[in-house]
Amino acid sequence: MIDELDLPVDLVSQRGSVRLRRATEHDLDGITALIADDPVSAGRGDLGAPDDRPLYLRGMRRILHAEGNDLVVVERDGHVVATMQLTVVPGMARRGSTRLMPEAVRVAAAERSAGIGAAMMRWVTAVAAPAVGASLVQLTSDAARTDAHRFYTRLGFVDSHIGFKYRVES
Amino acid sequence: MIDELDLPVDLVSQRGSVRLRRATEHDLDGITALIADDPVSAGRGDLGAPDDRPLYLRGMRRILHAEGNDLVVVERDGHVVATMQLTVVPGMARRGSTRLMPEAVRVAAAERSAGIGAAMMRWVTAVAAPAVGASLVQLTSDAARTDAHRFYTRLGFVDSHIGFKYRVES
Repeated sequence: MIDELDLPVDLVSQRGSVRLRRATEHDLDGITALIADDPVSAGRGDLGAPDDRPLYLRGMRRILHAEGNDLVVVERDGHVVATMQLTVVPGMARRGSTRLMPEAVRVAAAERSAGIGAAMMRWVTAVAAPAVGASLVQLTSDAARTDAHRFYTRLGFVDSHIGFKYRVES
Repeated sequence: MIDELDLPVDLVSQRGSVRLRRATEHDLDGITALIADDPVSAGRGDLGAPDDRPLYLRGMRRILHAEGNDLVVVERDGHVVATMQLTVVPGMARRGSTRLMPEAVRVAAAERSAGIGAAMMRWVTAVAAPAVGASLVQLTSDAARTDAHRFYTRLGFVDSHIGFKYRVES
């Protein structure tokens, strides 16, 4: 959990107000469905299969119990319509800057283009980052997600870096 | 601190054995100098200026005191010749995968091309990542660092992502 986050908070979308709150274990299936509802994620094995439920539950518990990590959902009329996780990364570079890193940002297909994602990211950059003392928000986006890249660029993010991944043999 | 890391550890470089160990506050100036000794970092304000020492010290303390975060140095004959920081990132995506993220990886100019960086990254992927239960190692590298990109690709990293940064107004 990230203690400094003042949640829940109401965000304005083009279809009215939605609520951003900390996730609980009751949100597990809703979040898993959002993560799986995406061709890029499905290609990496995120199919939301019932057999994988314990893995997602373990991941959720690790996020919620780890200092400097949090998992949030956006709710409209009691339904989870978006999610993201956040990690605070203390640092030496950039004169000892702390960074805030969103990961696994997802908005339900039926709720896209209504400004929910933009409202979430504006909350990250304008509210959450200052609350944790972060002077930089950083994230990576799969090179295939060209729509997401336009979205982040519009919000003022700069695509200055290459994101490398290494899959650890198990 | 990342409790699961078994440190110190000896690494083999082409100029003999070096020691990878957890940083202490005595290493502050050595690490700051390594971070500043780089044109890309200098361009972001990392000049190692004496006035900035309290900022680097604060960053170092945050890393060493935060659960799931660590700062290491590589020592040859009692001199700090390389550094990196590590962050454990629990997750929901990729079926609840935990990730390990190196940041601010630096090797002293006089020690480059001797395999120290490669030995550090092999320790990350082969030892540190399994120790923390991470199935993925992820990092971002400034688009200007073309030598670093070849280095990571040679080690088996895949440049599948775009890294976005947003500078928070203070």
